[in-house]
Amino acid sequence: MTTQLEHLTAAVRPLSKGIGFLEHAVQPNEIARLGWNLLHEDLSLPTAVLYEEKLAHNLAWMQQFADAYGAKLAPHGKTSMAPKLWHRQLQAGAWGITLATAHQVRVAYEHGVRRVLLANQLVGKQNMATISRLLEDKDFEFFCLVDSAELVQTLGQFFGSRGQRLNVLLEVGVQGGRTGVRNREQLEALLVALNEWKDNLTLCGVELFEGLLSDEKAIHGFLQSAVDVTKEVARQQRFQRSPVILTGAGSAWFDVVAEIFSKSKFDFEIEVLLRSGCYVTHDAGVYRDAQARMMKQNPVAQKMSPGLMPALQLWAYVQSVPEKNAAIVGFGKRDAAFDAGLPLPALHFRPGEKLPVPASQDWKVTRLWDQHAHMQIPESADLRVGDMIGFDISHPCLTFDKWRYLPVVDSNYTVIDVVETFF
Amino acid sequence: MTTQLEHLTAAVRPLSKGIGFLEHAVQPNEIARLGWNLLHEDLSLPTAVLYEEKLAHNLAWMQQFADAYGAKLAPHGKTSMAPKLWHRQLQAGAWGITLATAHQVRVAYEHGVRRVLLANQLVGKQNMATISRLLEDKDFEFFCLVDSAELVQTLGQFFGSRGQRLNVLLEVGVQGGRTGVRNREQLEALLVALNEWKDNLTLCGVELFEGLLSDEKAIHGFLQSAVDVTKEVARQQRFQRSPVILTGAGSAWFDVVAEIFSKSKFDFEIEVLLRSGCYVTHDAGVYRDAQARMMKQNPVAQKMSPGLMPALQLWAYVQSVPEKNAAIVGFGKRDAAFDAGLPLPALHFRPGEKLPVPASQDWKVTRLWDQHAHMQIPESADLRVGDMIGFDISHPCLTFDKWRYLPVVDSNYTVIDVVETFF
Repeated sequence: MTTQLEHLTAAVRPLSKGIGFLEHAVQPNEIARLGWNLLHEDLSLPTAVLYEEKLAHNLAWMQQFADAYGAKLAPHGKTSMAPKLWHRQLQAGAWGITLATAHQVRVAYEHGVRRVLLANQLVGKQNMATISRLLEDKDFEFFCLVDSAELVQTLGQFFGSRGQRLNVLLEVGVQGGRTGVRNREQLEALLVALNEWKDNLTLCGVELFEGLLSDEKAIHGFLQSAVDVTKEVARQQRFQRSPVILTGAGSAWFDVVAEIFSKSKFDFEIEVLLRSGCYVTHDAGVYRDAQARMMKQNPVAQKMSPGLMPALQLWAYVQSVPEKNAAIVGFGKRDAAFDAGLPLPALHFRPGEKLPVPASQDWKVTRLWDQHAHMQIPESADLRVGDMIGFDISHPCLTFDKWRYLPVVDSNYTVIDVVETFF
Repeated sequence: MTTQLEHLTAAVRPLSKGIGFLEHAVQPNEIARLGWNLLHEDLSLPTAVLYEEKLAHNLAWMQQFADAYGAKLAPHGKTSMAPKLWHRQLQAGAWGITLATAHQVRVAYEHGVRRVLLANQLVGKQNMATISRLLEDKDFEFFCLVDSAELVQTLGQFFGSRGQRLNVLLEVGVQGGRTGVRNREQLEALLVALNEWKDNLTLCGVELFEGLLSDEKAIHGFLQSAVDVTKEVARQQRFQRSPVILTGAGSAWFDVVAEIFSKSKFDFEIEVLLRSGCYVTHDAGVYRDAQARMMKQNPVAQKMSPGLMPALQLWAYVQSVPEKNAAIVGFGKRDAAFDAGLPLPALHFRPGEKLPVPASQDWKVTRLWDQHAHMQIPESADLRVGDMIGFDISHPCLTFDKWRYLPVVDSNYTVIDVVETFF
């Protein structure tokens, strides 16, 4: 497929929130020349900014972590849906990019990504057709998951009728979990179906997502069962790729996955892929907690201090202080994730002053509406209408998807780039 | 300000989710010619579709409701952020469009909307500068809220130094609520400040948002207090506009607001503006509940049967049926609101069959992840991988903001248009 899509040279469009004023669309490489600075109020708040130094640190940290285990990194690109960040992950050494939907895969392809793991089942005529079109490019390497004989039949027929080959990974799941085969019966049926379509569906390995579980012992058991299934399927000589891929890891348990997968003994070649995605910006909520656990337990992480750093902050104005104990801030559910803890006041800046200062630990976001936040404050709080607050967030995925552009700032809060997202 | 922005002739871009396959960007008026049909699987699911007949019904219904009260409609445009829908609201008779941020106001202006009510405080240098630029167009009529003397001073200085006039509405609030003056002391201070800037800030009326309250008696009291404040400020001859604007109403209590505001007696000219936004698509959750109450209580709504209809549905594929009682469906928190009830299975369609059938009432979404839904089903459910499910949603605002394009379908599920959003 030849594509000459307009977006490949897409300019930053003026009508998106969180950027400075643009009369016309500008090329991304012209953004730095505009000299926008967050503290000079050149951006229209609310905005979500990325801190370049922390981003760069996180990109290097995670790759180094994977390297230490001899594992490869296939970071989940759905977190940011930002091709610019994907390319930085690839440049840092990632094996490829993991994605969740056919749409996301196309976004990656059109931005030059040539190895994608769809950590999901590929379902539906238009979605299969999208992948089929991309596979016409022999330089494009693609893997997706299968977890039922039914799906194998559908995929086999679709890609078989087009004379194409599709790489698949067997997904194992847990009872009460999400996708993935649950038992031996399902596994056997799947393998029989795969055998029927072996000229069109290439079984390349085994996949799981352990992030559905929160009990570490259960996670250990689940990971071990995936190792066992991998060995068994290898014994049956069902894999059509060497090395065999074994992949797991969301952003909360990647250390445990690395430990168990990388230290298991196989009598065949294996490629361990870690799929964490949130590390790129990390957070000050669920993933900070996950890191705290990791730093207690994991010998590799312990040697890599400092760990991941929150690299995304939301900035908004105080727009009203209508009660002694309440400030209303100009951002809401449309600007930040709210499903894994509410944003945390981190920095306080009064326009005209020199630098932000740490926000008081007594300030607390207690409620979010679509476009407003209620922040509880003590009576003594020195807070005025027009003050700027920088909030740490919890759950990067559901924060990225609120923004079409995220300004990247240097340590002086000067905008040096803009990252575009493709949701 | 003259603007010749590229987006005014913006084409539908290929890399957004939920639409059909596009090799290149196409003009919106070419979409219908492509002949995409949801049931032929021409769209990449998940997708959020708008039903034209129901949209048209809702647009007419709400305008008729406001007309019956002699009230005007300033629908909240933040719900959809879709200029195409705003123009249909205006064509149906709306007075203007309500918005929540300076960014949103600019989007409206650049798409030709010339009367905007910013139902919010205007805070921050860049945000004020954006509005100031738009005000250079004398055909642009704009109103925003003030609720503190502090903000009045800031706005007075900013717009005064530019020799401009800004129309403001006094916002009244309630203790424990969001923005808005809470007491007489704040009101007096605000009026004194406004008097100081009377050449630059034009007080045009009074605003409230009753949707923070859930107790009807409290809402009555709040609305009455706004009426009283309006009369008092009028007695003091502080308003600089006739008719005086009196505005309230989210999407849950607009009937009560219409009753109280429109039936209050004033000895001066008054313009009642209702700001409901969610009516445009309505929903099958919180706003269906609100409508059920309305149909019991409100004499005007009772005569306007049928009421508002859910005009937005999310469609997704069953991607796995890994357990007897569980189907995993290919959509998640990134595709639908989840803060006011989870999406409800409404229609079931098996590709190849003729038409969707009602989804079983036994099917229930019990959990959402970022990109997946867990649907609980009875063992007997006739559900297969690849089946399509249409879900009703609760809370249109937080569903619209997940989508850059929403296909509009006719009663045959053929795509006749695409609505673009500008978040």
